[in-house]
Amino acid sequence: MATKIVRYETLKNTAARVLEHLGYPPPHAEITAEILVEADAREVPSHGVARLEFYEKNIKGGFAVPAAEPVIVHETPLSLVVDGNNGVGPHVSDFTMKRCIEKAAKTGAGFGAVRNSNHFGMAGLWAERAAAKNQIGMAFTNTRICSIPTFGRQRILGTNPVCFAIPQEGRPPFMVDMATTTVAHGKIEVYERRGKDMPLGWVVDERGKGTTDTKASQKLFWSTCPDGGHLFLGGEGEELGGHKGYGLGLLVDLLCAGLSLGRWSLHTFEGKGSGIAHFFGAIRLDLFGDAAQIKRHVASILDEVRNSNKAEGQDRIYIHGEKEAEARARAMKAGIDLDEKTCLLLEKYGKQFGIPLGF
Amino acid sequence: MATKIVRYETLKNTAARVLEHLGYPPPHAEITAEILVEADAREVPSHGVARLEFYEKNIKGGFAVPAAEPVIVHETPLSLVVDGNNGVGPHVSDFTMKRCIEKAAKTGAGFGAVRNSNHFGMAGLWAERAAAKNQIGMAFTNTRICSIPTFGRQRILGTNPVCFAIPQEGRPPFMVDMATTTVAHGKIEVYERRGKDMPLGWVVDERGKGTTDTKASQKLFWSTCPDGGHLFLGGEGEELGGHKGYGLGLLVDLLCAGLSLGRWSLHTFEGKGSGIAHFFGAIRLDLFGDAAQIKRHVASILDEVRNSNKAEGQDRIYIHGEKEAEARARAMKAGIDLDEKTCLLLEKYGKQFGIPLGF
Repeated sequence: MATKIVRYETLKNTAARVLEHLGYPPPHAEITAEILVEADAREVPSHGVARLEFYEKNIKGGFAVPAAEPVIVHETPLSLVVDGNNGVGPHVSDFTMKRCIEKAAKTGAGFGAVRNSNHFGMAGLWAERAAAKNQIGMAFTNTRICSIPTFGRQRILGTNPVCFAIPQEGRPPFMVDMATTTVAHGKIEVYERRGKDMPLGWVVDERGKGTTDTKASQKLFWSTCPDGGHLFLGGEGEELGGHKGYGLGLLVDLLCAGLSLGRWSLHTFEGKGSGIAHFFGAIRLDLFGDAAQIKRHVASILDEVRNSNKAEGQDRIYIHGEKEAEARARAMKAGIDLDEKTCLLLEKYGKQFGIPLGF
Repeated sequence: MATKIVRYETLKNTAARVLEHLGYPPPHAEITAEILVEADAREVPSHGVARLEFYEKNIKGGFAVPAAEPVIVHETPLSLVVDGNNGVGPHVSDFTMKRCIEKAAKTGAGFGAVRNSNHFGMAGLWAERAAAKNQIGMAFTNTRICSIPTFGRQRILGTNPVCFAIPQEGRPPFMVDMATTTVAHGKIEVYERRGKDMPLGWVVDERGKGTTDTKASQKLFWSTCPDGGHLFLGGEGEELGGHKGYGLGLLVDLLCAGLSLGRWSLHTFEGKGSGIAHFFGAIRLDLFGDAAQIKRHVASILDEVRNSNKAEGQDRIYIHGEKEAEARARAMKAGIDLDEKTCLLLEKYGKQFGIPLGF
């Protein structure tokens, strides 16, 4: 089995059936499958159906309880705090983001802090829901530890992504959706598979010093040594602004774990439940005037950015969210490209659970 | 006249008198002097009284109208949009942030988008006001153009800082206050004065290619050529995440200029008024439960960060806002260190306006 082109609905159905066999109630399987397949459709396979394996491990390790239901532990007209009860991330996030958007529709803004959840997929998928309702969307999450504060050497923070979505006229929303670390771990794995050295600025070793040694750093990453790991955006030290990336990463943990009284990255995957924490926000665009007029103004700014002078050898300046939106449009027409490893994983599940793959 | 140590109140009074002689009404002079001296006290002299010269130029160039009053052009219980009428930045920002904090106190959250303002000083000074009231504070601003989008070569965006302040128990707030560019322009000027090459990742040349040539880049920066300038956090291209810093910088312009229907960075300092735009936010901490409990939890997370393993050769991991708070505490006791250039500037104003400097 090599790579395959699979239709969106087919892949989603297959993923949902696998999740049901892993113990997910059908609605939890449905929303999780959607979140995974949306990532594949946008050519972000690190958050796609290949994650089924990780989700299975989380159940087996006691980190995720597929049938658990989130509960609201604090609520105001503008906010809610949710205890995910170690339930599945997309279900808990769907529960919370829906309420943030409803609150914003009623009052102008809605914010949700969530504790005891699990991996929630691409942050942008939550933020863009608000944008679709003429709201500014926000989605943040902490993650398993992998990264190092400026002047530190210990893995104490996650990739801690931030996402903001702002609606514009005539196009998908502006959407900056980014790990606050320089790169996601998947990029290092690609370098490992190819036997290549990494660029300086991605990772530090067990002494807290920058390294390009992919193999040694991967070995360290999965060892019991608590030191060595990812650098934040801006790299090592302060010269290229590493303290700024670290500040954004720490901000994410304070918004997610701080406000929800949950676990911060350092204590995720300790004991029962992964303890992942999220923060969501929705702010109605018409708090600032006529939403249509604001969306036209945003679109006109982004047009000017697009049309500005290009660097030598470049023919396009991208707006954040464009690449993913274009990839999705292609995938909805032509199908989703699945790599060999992911095809083999689905084949394995298909045989194990007696599910016809449909591709 | 060499460097001088000056008491906070003395420096503030001197700066306020200078501003009055430049045409600021006394209350506008008072708040602007406070904002400038606070930056000096925190050892952020790039935003300190040395800026008086820039403020004078803005008046003479027709970019700032010292006596102008801001007006509210749109308002809801959670938000306001302010037209600064080309007034002075600290007055316009004081006007807006006060109302954001009042709105948050009443409804839970307050947001303010501002157009046609001017330079507002250190972003953190606005955000920390919310933190002092047990609110999460936010302050963003666009600036004069200086920076380059990923794959671009034209200066179309500013340093576009973001600032978030989160209160904690027993210490000044966590406060990440950062230009979204790799470095502020002042750092390049320091390298120029010392005749040193810059590190790669700060600046691109007129072709959009990374350069270390400080002298050539400074010449280009002040020329009529629209190309070449600052890189965003993460540097050139995508390998070290430059597209992420660019995304944050663009986000700032959409929040500031987009929501206020104001001018984005590219069009600041065109025609009448500088057209600088800001965005402020305040979110009450008790939207998420007991504020005291949340502040204790935030403090405990930050303690664990501080106590994590240090890199070889490092003995401290900083929390954002600590350096500035410690510098301020020192300055309130021992006075503020003014460099020679700033002393000479104040001496010049003192003679010109017949103001006794008091130091």
